[in-house]
Amino acid sequence: MTTQQLHEQILLKKSFLCVGLDPDLTKIPPHLLETEDPIFEFNKAIIDATHDLTVGYKPNTAFFEAYGIKGWISLQKTINYINENFPEMFTIADAKRGDIGNTSSMYAKAFFEDLNFDSVTVAPYMGKDSVEPFLAFENKHTIMLALTSNEGAFDFQTLNINGKELYKQVLETSKTWKNSHNLMYVVGATKAEYFTEIRKIVPDSFLLVPGIGAQGGSLSEVCKYGMNDKVGLLVNSARAIIYASNGTDFAEKAREEALKVQQEMEEILSLRFQV
Amino acid sequence: MTTQQLHEQILLKKSFLCVGLDPDLTKIPPHLLETEDPIFEFNKAIIDATHDLTVGYKPNTAFFEAYGIKGWISLQKTINYINENFPEMFTIADAKRGDIGNTSSMYAKAFFEDLNFDSVTVAPYMGKDSVEPFLAFENKHTIMLALTSNEGAFDFQTLNINGKELYKQVLETSKTWKNSHNLMYVVGATKAEYFTEIRKIVPDSFLLVPGIGAQGGSLSEVCKYGMNDKVGLLVNSARAIIYASNGTDFAEKAREEALKVQQEMEEILSLRFQV
Repeated sequence: MTTQQLHEQILLKKSFLCVGLDPDLTKIPPHLLETEDPIFEFNKAIIDATHDLTVGYKPNTAFFEAYGIKGWISLQKTINYINENFPEMFTIADAKRGDIGNTSSMYAKAFFEDLNFDSVTVAPYMGKDSVEPFLAFENKHTIMLALTSNEGAFDFQTLNINGKELYKQVLETSKTWKNSHNLMYVVGATKAEYFTEIRKIVPDSFLLVPGIGAQGGSLSEVCKYGMNDKVGLLVNSARAIIYASNGTDFAEKAREEALKVQQEMEEILSLRFQV
Repeated sequence: MTTQQLHEQILLKKSFLCVGLDPDLTKIPPHLLETEDPIFEFNKAIIDATHDLTVGYKPNTAFFEAYGIKGWISLQKTINYINENFPEMFTIADAKRGDIGNTSSMYAKAFFEDLNFDSVTVAPYMGKDSVEPFLAFENKHTIMLALTSNEGAFDFQTLNINGKELYKQVLETSKTWKNSHNLMYVVGATKAEYFTEIRKIVPDSFLLVPGIGAQGGSLSEVCKYGMNDKVGLLVNSARAIIYASNGTDFAEKAREEALKVQQEMEEILSLRFQV
């Protein structure tokens, strides 16, 4: 999927919502636990109930790996289900990978080829040769951590390096890497006031924005400072949507929550775009 | 496994070698490709041929994930094989994970509980709450990236923060985290001259040292500057050992290479310890 196609999907659906799939057996509706693959059944129901309101899904690999081989099978089934039934969907493997070059090549192969995700999240700490193997895949997208939504973001990401915070240096340096046009960035919604500065460095890049919903970030603030003329935002919500209920009505309640966000997005989009 | 037990194993085996298991179907001996699970067969043969010369094995998760569900099955079989047959072995899931708190908890569960590794490598970029969920597991070890062996290490890790390089700040800050006694650190062998400074910050911690062998680091230099009075080093070698031959003699040749390293280690240890 190209960024132009993603932009078109956003205008078509009047939504830049991405639903995070963080399936946790201790939180999903108990009646699903009797099925053969509760994690997949949960994801499938959430996807079926929300796909017209969202432009993307972001399975978080940790929530599959925690269940070992069974979990990896659920992940494979989930991405296959999306690709087969909703090929217009932008898919994100939220995996936070990154290693020396030959190892990153294997991770890229895992997520872009074997599982056929459109994108994967990566960590920047190991630098250029840990990220470029991902960037080598054309029409696949590498979403690098810049400024995250958690408290620990202030441990290192905002440290001052010659008058500039580390996350800004990460953004600037990454622009010099080969195939940097395939980069997107993670910027937490809990830090909306930082978007102005970030847009000075990466005006055209798509930003994946976690942290609205359960983590407390504001959608309107994020859009005010972070939106560009291609929208340029994918706002993720996981817990607030997928765990809106843990009864038999969970999918319906998830849809209600997703609809609220989509409607807020439609209103925001209508002020700047022909939607 | 406790660090004291690891120290004892090192003196007993006269080795602080860890063998990296990076199974790549394009590199392993062609005759293994006819078996049902070539990756596991390869790992098993390497382990059988080297276990008396090493104190640890470090499967690199990327090389399993690249093969999808089959790869995850091979990973499960590999760690089970080690735990069942060589319970004295220190096992490292080289996974470079790290995410917001509830996600890191799931990764910790995946590697410490489901797969039952002794340790896992993590990335520091997301700070305290991305690492502490791993540290909460007693007698499990969290090996955090400090200064890596690759070229990209100079992109961010060595940037100057108020007169101090980022990797030093990472080391110092991590010491303030809850259960920081469960931390170890990755420090690349290709940067032996940095060990003196690192030992000033973390004198007692075990350091996992990649980069000898294929990446060109010197064992004697690493030991000169990095060894402490508990040895405090686990030196990893992967490609130079596991791909010493791709003929039917691959395990034998792997043993020869491991033996060379072990003998060099024995000589170094004999100068400082009763081995």
